[in-house]
Amino acid sequence: MTITTVELTQALIRCRSVTPDDNGALDVLSDVLRDAGFDVHLPVFSAPDTPDIRNLYARIGTGAPIFVFAGHTDVVPPGDEASWTAGAFSGEVRDGVLYGRGAVDMKGGVAAMTVAALRHIEKHGLENGSIAFLITGDEEGPAINGMVKLLEWAAERQERFDHCVLGEPSSRSELGDEVKIGRRGSQSGTLVVHGKQGHVAYPHKADNPIRRMLPILDTLLAPLDDGTAHFERSNLELTSVDVGNPTPNVIPAKATISFNVRFNDTYTLDTLKTLLSERVKQAAGPTRYELSFATRAASSFITEPGDFIQIIADSVEAETGRRPRLATGGGTSDARFIKDYCPVVEVGMTNATMHQVDERVSVAELDAVTRVYEQILARYFAS
Amino acid sequence: MTITTVELTQALIRCRSVTPDDNGALDVLSDVLRDAGFDVHLPVFSAPDTPDIRNLYARIGTGAPIFVFAGHTDVVPPGDEASWTAGAFSGEVRDGVLYGRGAVDMKGGVAAMTVAALRHIEKHGLENGSIAFLITGDEEGPAINGMVKLLEWAAERQERFDHCVLGEPSSRSELGDEVKIGRRGSQSGTLVVHGKQGHVAYPHKADNPIRRMLPILDTLLAPLDDGTAHFERSNLELTSVDVGNPTPNVIPAKATISFNVRFNDTYTLDTLKTLLSERVKQAAGPTRYELSFATRAASSFITEPGDFIQIIADSVEAETGRRPRLATGGGTSDARFIKDYCPVVEVGMTNATMHQVDERVSVAELDAVTRVYEQILARYFAS
Repeated sequence: MTITTVELTQALIRCRSVTPDDNGALDVLSDVLRDAGFDVHLPVFSAPDTPDIRNLYARIGTGAPIFVFAGHTDVVPPGDEASWTAGAFSGEVRDGVLYGRGAVDMKGGVAAMTVAALRHIEKHGLENGSIAFLITGDEEGPAINGMVKLLEWAAERQERFDHCVLGEPSSRSELGDEVKIGRRGSQSGTLVVHGKQGHVAYPHKADNPIRRMLPILDTLLAPLDDGTAHFERSNLELTSVDVGNPTPNVIPAKATISFNVRFNDTYTLDTLKTLLSERVKQAAGPTRYELSFATRAASSFITEPGDFIQIIADSVEAETGRRPRLATGGGTSDARFIKDYCPVVEVGMTNATMHQVDERVSVAELDAVTRVYEQILARYFAS
Repeated sequence: MTITTVELTQALIRCRSVTPDDNGALDVLSDVLRDAGFDVHLPVFSAPDTPDIRNLYARIGTGAPIFVFAGHTDVVPPGDEASWTAGAFSGEVRDGVLYGRGAVDMKGGVAAMTVAALRHIEKHGLENGSIAFLITGDEEGPAINGMVKLLEWAAERQERFDHCVLGEPSSRSELGDEVKIGRRGSQSGTLVVHGKQGHVAYPHKADNPIRRMLPILDTLLAPLDDGTAHFERSNLELTSVDVGNPTPNVIPAKATISFNVRFNDTYTLDTLKTLLSERVKQAAGPTRYELSFATRAASSFITEPGDFIQIIADSVEAETGRRPRLATGGGTSDARFIKDYCPVVEVGMTNATMHQVDERVSVAELDAVTRVYEQILARYFAS
């Protein structure tokens, strides 16, 4: 008798694996996978000024295609533990609902993927192809010693992945209402607008950078596009404006503006930066300024609808009765790294309580999402 | 033989009277005035958290009208003393030019007014009326224990002033090109614009206060008036905008805007604040904000052209050949306090080097401004 998804989720929740700690979470998973015949590795990655991180790579089967389940066992801190209905790391089930940090994001998902794989192998064996797991302990943290390095490590071992399901909680209101087939890109930047300091009583001898900044801000806020087939419109937010002049009779010398753009597949990082640079130049006219872009940025990506997405959508619909929206909104995930290796889709539970006190999921939903993953495997390896 | 203006200026410059220190400056002046028959008082004023300040009140004559010369003997710091051509407090004359901190602002003016009064009395006596001096040691500092209290002190002694010449350096390029008959008012304020904090990836769940602030800033920068008979147009400068959000993926909760208005006689402090409040309310629409005004503010004032201004302008023109512009621009001076007691006009030297290293004035200009003050006294008491 295979372990149930609820039992495995509980076992994972009881390991206090707040990033960067593991506290046995990957051992729990490793034991279950090894027992089922997986070849399991637990590589530890290091980098200066960041904690060492344990990761897990597991594979069963020797042939192609390799279907990958990806996820993470680290969680965000519990917040005020006294405020939880049940202990944040107790994994308690009350009235059919499992409470605990990571129930949704994403120990529940990791457990469901694992149990689905075990059941699939039990039922169908693995006549053709392989199932692999890429599980990291550094998704909620700096993400330096996590999925990026685990993918590189696997590539060096000649592991060639064909398709990936990332079990993040992709659903919004009801299981299966949304799967995520891509993500917007993200680019931050800083604009410094220069003027000339002076006395407020003699404005003609000074040059107020705040006045000069305003038309440039209007330009930055101008629409970037109207959205694309699978993406909402790109959006720029001004995240800070800072002058820091404490003296009421002084016109300041400069103003510093910070912004972040979440952008769709209308742009690459390069074309986005070129557009913004041109717009600012145009709006600035003779105003002196420096525009700089953060080096840490992410381009947009999409797994174009096709056979793989069809399998996902059919599986979700078969289990839930809902045809999922093919979404690209929201924040980033490890999909931004995985997409460089193979097509990736995020399919998982409802995310309403993630990162909150009383993060929780019903036992029914855990079982349902497990069946969705089972269906995906069945359809994938049948095709 | 009366002391010359250059000699008295030198004696004053040699006292290192950087606010709040006096270092004998008022004693130098007091001695000269007493020798000439003035009744001299040196009241010291105090207030919590500010240094004690020496001030001087002197009067000669017993009848009305009382003509007042006003000024200050304190000076701003010398800056880098090593950079001065001659020592900042040496009072050296080189090639006909007197160097030193206060040469222009305004030990030279105090000396010229004093010497002019002495010469006038020597030549004409004081058949009708009185000449008084209101000299403070706290004009460049907080101005708490200075002219305000000296005027109150004199009022308590039943001194009723009829007209005042404040010997600040009012000329811009050439002696007598400008006298100042009033000043704009000054009002600072703070505007806090509220939004709702959130993640840049979910802008619909947040409410960016920077975006909300922009139309309000446009409104604040809208023209206030077209200027009046003797005033340039009122002007608002945004002096700071501060959000202080260091996190590039966070939409901030609020933005704080600081501003200062220099305004003409179109407005009183009350009507100005009402107008700005209404404009902000209009532009803000549903945006939540708090608008507050600094309690320390100054209303605009003017000494309307008439007989007194006529005497001033005629005297300047007779000595310099220039009919002075009747100006109201620039920063504040003690005239803002004196105007509550009697009409006041600022008449003095060119101000090009004030507050700078190598502050200086030619001996010729010191003599010329002394003759201007003499002419003013002669015309005033002849009329």
